[in-house]
This record gives sequence, C-alpha cells and structure tokens, in this order.
Amino acid sequence: MKTKLVQLLLAWVLLLRVACSVRADDPLPSWNDTAPKKAIIAFVEKVAKEGSPDFVKPEERIATFDNDGTLWVEQPIYTQVTFAIDEVIAKAPQHPEWREVEPFKSILAHDRAAMLTFSIQDFEKVVAVTHSGMSVQQFLEIVKKWLAEAKHPRFKRPYTECVYQPMLELMQYLRANGFKTYIVTGGGQEFVRAFAEKVYGVPPDKVVGSMGKVKYQYDKDGNPELIKLPEVLLIDDKAGKPEGINMVIGRRSVGAFGNSTGDQQMLEYTGAGTGARLMMLVHHDDKDREYTYGPAGGLEGTKVGSFSESLMSEARVRGWTVVSMRKDWKRVFAFE
Amino acid sequence: MKTKLVQLLLAWVLLLRVACSVRADDPLPSWNDTAPKKAIIAFVEKVAKEGSPDFVKPEERIATFDNDGTLWVEQPIYTQVTFAIDEVIAKAPQHPEWREVEPFKSILAHDRAAMLTFSIQDFEKVVAVTHSGMSVQQFLEIVKKWLAEAKHPRFKRPYTECVYQPMLELMQYLRANGFKTYIVTGGGQEFVRAFAEKVYGVPPDKVVGSMGKVKYQYDKDGNPELIKLPEVLLIDDKAGKPEGINMVIGRRSVGAFGNSTGDQQMLEYTGAGTGARLMMLVHHDDKDREYTYGPAGGLEGTKVGSFSESLMSEARVRGWTVVSMRKDWKRVFAFE
Repeated sequence: MKTKLVQLLLAWVLLLRVACSVRADDPLPSWNDTAPKKAIIAFVEKVAKEGSPDFVKPEERIATFDNDGTLWVEQPIYTQVTFAIDEVIAKAPQHPEWREVEPFKSILAHDRAAMLTFSIQDFEKVVAVTHSGMSVQQFLEIVKKWLAEAKHPRFKRPYTECVYQPMLELMQYLRANGFKTYIVTGGGQEFVRAFAEKVYGVPPDKVVGSMGKVKYQYDKDGNPELIKLPEVLLIDDKAGKPEGINMVIGRRSVGAFGNSTGDQQMLEYTGAGTGARLMMLVHHDDKDREYTYGPAGGLEGTKVGSFSESLMSEARVRGWTVVSMRKDWKRVFAFE
Repeated sequence: MKTKLVQLLLAWVLLLRVACSVRADDPLPSWNDTAPKKAIIAFVEKVAKEGSPDFVKPEERIATFDNDGTLWVEQPIYTQVTFAIDEVIAKAPQHPEWREVEPFKSILAHDRAAMLTFSIQDFEKVVAVTHSGMSVQQFLEIVKKWLAEAKHPRFKRPYTECVYQPMLELMQYLRANGFKTYIVTGGGQEFVRAFAEKVYGVPPDKVVGSMGKVKYQYDKDGNPELIKLPEVLLIDDKAGKPEGINMVIGRRSVGAFGNSTGDQQMLEYTGAGTGARLMMLVHHDDKDREYTYGPAGGLEGTKVGSFSESLMSEARVRGWTVVSMRKDWKRVFAFE
C-alpha cells in the first residue's frame, strides 16, 4: 500500500516535470496553435537568427504596441476616461460651480447619455481639471492610487489585472529575442507610465503617448519641479502614432500591434519599411470571455476601439495578421 | 646575437602587455588623476555596486549629456548653424529672390558681422528653408552627406572627429556600468541622430533634442512618409531640457553633464533628486588644444556656449564638478 502510494507520487512528479518542460519550451502557452501564433514564431525566428536573410540587428528590433484594446480591456469605456470622471467627482466638493456648468454637470449627474455626446472641447475641459495643475510626480501618485482602488465594472478586478495574458507572453517572447517593446498609446503618456513598468515590464522611456506640455519651475522652497499644463503637444493616435514614434524612438518599428483604426497608420508605416515585418490586429469577437465589437458586430454604437470594415479590408490587402480572441487565444486573462 | 634579439623581443612583448593591462584597468585613460576623474569613479562605484547604500537600480541609471561644447567642439560657431549656412548657399541658385531678402542676403554675402546680429526670427527663417519640407529620412541623408564633407575651420577635420576623447571614455565607462547614456541637446534632435550612434554609440531613441513637428502623409505612390514641418514643438535648452527629458525618458537622470547656462536647469533637476548624483560642467580654458571662453575669459562677445559667472557660482554652491580642460584632460581629441 505504502509502496503504491510512493509509486503514484513519483509518477505524478514525473508527469508534472514533463508538463512543466512542455510549457517551458512553448513561449506562447496562452495562444492556440493557429495561424497568428505560427506567424509570430516564424517572424521572430527569421529576424533574430544570425545569418538569416531577414536578420535584423538587435538595436533595430523595435516592436510597438497599442495599449487600449490591445494590451488591456477598453470596454465599456476607456480606463483613462473612467479615471477622469472619478477625479471630477472627487474634486467636485471644492468646485460647487461645477453643478451648473457643462460638461461637469452631466458627469456629476452620472448622465451617461449626455456624456456620450461630449465634444472634444468638453473632454479638453475635463482633462484640464484632472490632468494638469500638478507636478508630473504628483500626477503619477494620483494615478497609482486610483488604479490601486478602482475596479473594472464587469470583471470586478483592478484594471491592471484586466490585461491580456497572450499579449504579455508575446511581449516577453519578443524581449527574450532582443526586441525592445514600446507602448504607443492614444492615452496619456504619463497615465500609462504610472503602471506600464509593473504591469507590462515596459519602463517609462518606452512609453509613447499623447503628451501635454510641462513647465519647469521652482516651488516655494526653491526646489525644481515639472508642472503639467493643459496644452496638448501631441495626440498620439492615428497619424500621431508614427509621428510620436519618430519623436521618442527615432526608428521605424519592425513589429506593430494594435486593434483599431487608431493603429492603422502605425501598422502602415511599419509595413512600409524594407525587410521582414509583422503587423497584427486584435479582433474582439469573444463576448463570453471579454467583448465582441468591431466588424464582428456587437456593442452597437460604441465609440470605443473602432475596428471598421475598411480596416479589416486593409488588413486583408496588406497581409496583416488578424487575431481572433475567440479562436486564437487559449486564455484571455491570467485570472481565468 | 640571435638570442639577444629574441630576449629583446620577449621583453618588448612583456612591456606591451603590461602597458595594455594598465590601460585596460583604467577606464578613463585620457583623464588626469585630478578631482573630476576621482569624482566620476567614486560616483560610479557607489551607485553601481550592489549592497552600497547609494545603489541605483540599472533601469534608473540615466546619464544625460549636452552635445555642443560638452561632447564636441562648438566654437567658433555651432556646427548645426554652419550646416544651415552651407545649405542656404547650396540652395541659393534655385532661389534668386534670396539675394535681396534678409537674412539670406547677409548669408550669401558671407557677412559675418550681420549674421551675428540675427534675431530669433531670422534663424527661424533659415531653419524653415534648411530643416523642413523634406522627409525625416531625406533630412538624415542630407546631414550625413554634409558631415562627410565639411571640415572644422581650425582643426581641418570632419566635425565628427572634433569630439572630446575623455567624454567618449566617460560615456563608455558609464555604459559598461549599466548606465543608459542619453544626449540632451539644444540642437535639432534629427540633426544629432544623424551621427550620434556612429560617433558616440548613442542610438536614435537616446537622443533628446529640439524638435519640430512632423506630418504623416503619403507620397505619389501611396507610400507613407514623415515630412518635417517648420513648426517648433520643443526648444530643448535651459528649462526645455528637463521638459524634454520628461517627454522622452520619463525619469530623472542621476548624472548630468554640460558646459553652459543652457544646461543649468538639467543639472539642477538632476541634483534635486534623492540619492547619489553627479553633476559636471566642462570649462573651456584651453586655447592651445581647443578654446578658452566663459569665466576664464577669452573669445570676448561670443554668443556660443555661455558659461556665465553666475553659473560658476551656482556650481560652487551646489557642489557641481567643474572640469578644467587644461588641467583635467590628458588628451582632448583622439587625433592628437
């Protein structure tokens, strides 16, 4: 009896070791063995292998990732917009006048229908009161504090856990093969810097985002500080993405990963370089594990993460890889 | 006789090996053993040594270097200004109207006195016709071509050879100790990117400079390109340096190296962080090997590289290291 137990335990240990070694050999365990995974591995093997005709020098192995909808959940509303709304609500007691002034009035009344009709000018007013007037350091602390407390309305977890496990594995796999992984987001550069290093392993110097002006000044004790101003320097979306890549990276990426029309130009510019390239779009077609929207239908009228029919056509014409969340991802979130 | 020759050769080989090992042990062979060299080595040893109370994690080991007058010669006139003048002269045949319009008229007449009185608006006009209207890629090629042909008026060598050997050794030494070395220049970001990787080992993503807007568009064949526009996004000088560091690096540097009032805020901001820091100013006091200007006198009325008396006082008060080219550098240029 005792011998049998020992044998069973031994067999189990062996089995576990085999399972672990299979996992260690597979750099992308959360991806199914479908076309996207094969395309990723083929790309990495040809650009990172010395002597390959498609070899790319390590310093030129630049991979750029959109954030909202590509690395983390963007539905039902961009996380940074939720942050801004929460900040307006938190600051409202010091601003009684907001109860009578738009766009603050609608936000404080939780009037979702009105919020959906906000103009760019309305958003600018919200950004001005929530994203400026403090030092960069203070802003980072505000964002970190909010991220530590806020929870996604559907998944009931911190937003920083609502990140796609297959994409984390992809970034890790690229870095293990000498790539530099950058985030190139339409979101605020400093908002994303507040968590990108901890969540994605992407340090602040590898976060390109929409940028506001900062002003160097001295506080009352004569210490220098950088104050965030409400003026915009770059909207890092659509054509702004290759422009932002030029500002911060100064090199064309060889791999580009997105999920919406905001990423179209980044993928086009990546694809227009010579040599091996990988352009990839995440298609949200998995309402059970995440959301279904874009060309798969679903979430009618969403203003978030527009993956248009014309983007799908361009992907087909240019040979971009479209990832079906439903078919190509074994697991969506680490917490599953 | 033959034995003696062999012995002599052997002795010589041994001597060479000893000489090489001495050199290999000294990371800064072009620096005299004076205070600045000691300050550099003490700083690196305390921040890079695990377990040291001043240990800095590798990802936070950011060192920022000014370019003009800190890494390469800036007298008698900034290299990029010479480039712009040469470009105006080269383009003049296609612009007969320039012969009657300032500031082009003075440039084409080689009127140095008039050029010295140019206003910011005059410079903007020159920059507009020489630094915009082409793609980023085309501009890099123009600069590379110019740098391959142009020579410094005094040293009769390419500008890319008029770089300070001790500073190259310092950058190399910092990188060997896990630092990331950035250039933070008042010069144009793309102008400096054209040579920084080859000359300093600093890749494009580690060059922060004055930035113009770029515009993403498609050429007649439908290929995407980034076109340089004449609008300024950032003047990366004085307060603009910490602002540019925030945009591109997103982290405060722990080492900062400059030579003029344009670098004052970068050094202040570096010094205002907590933990071990190294702030250093190169003082040009060596008219025999290079130039003498700034608080040492010389080159009266130069508008290039202002190292004011008040900067020298601030350096004293804040404990910044001032490098005397004459006393602290064994060798200034590699070609000596």
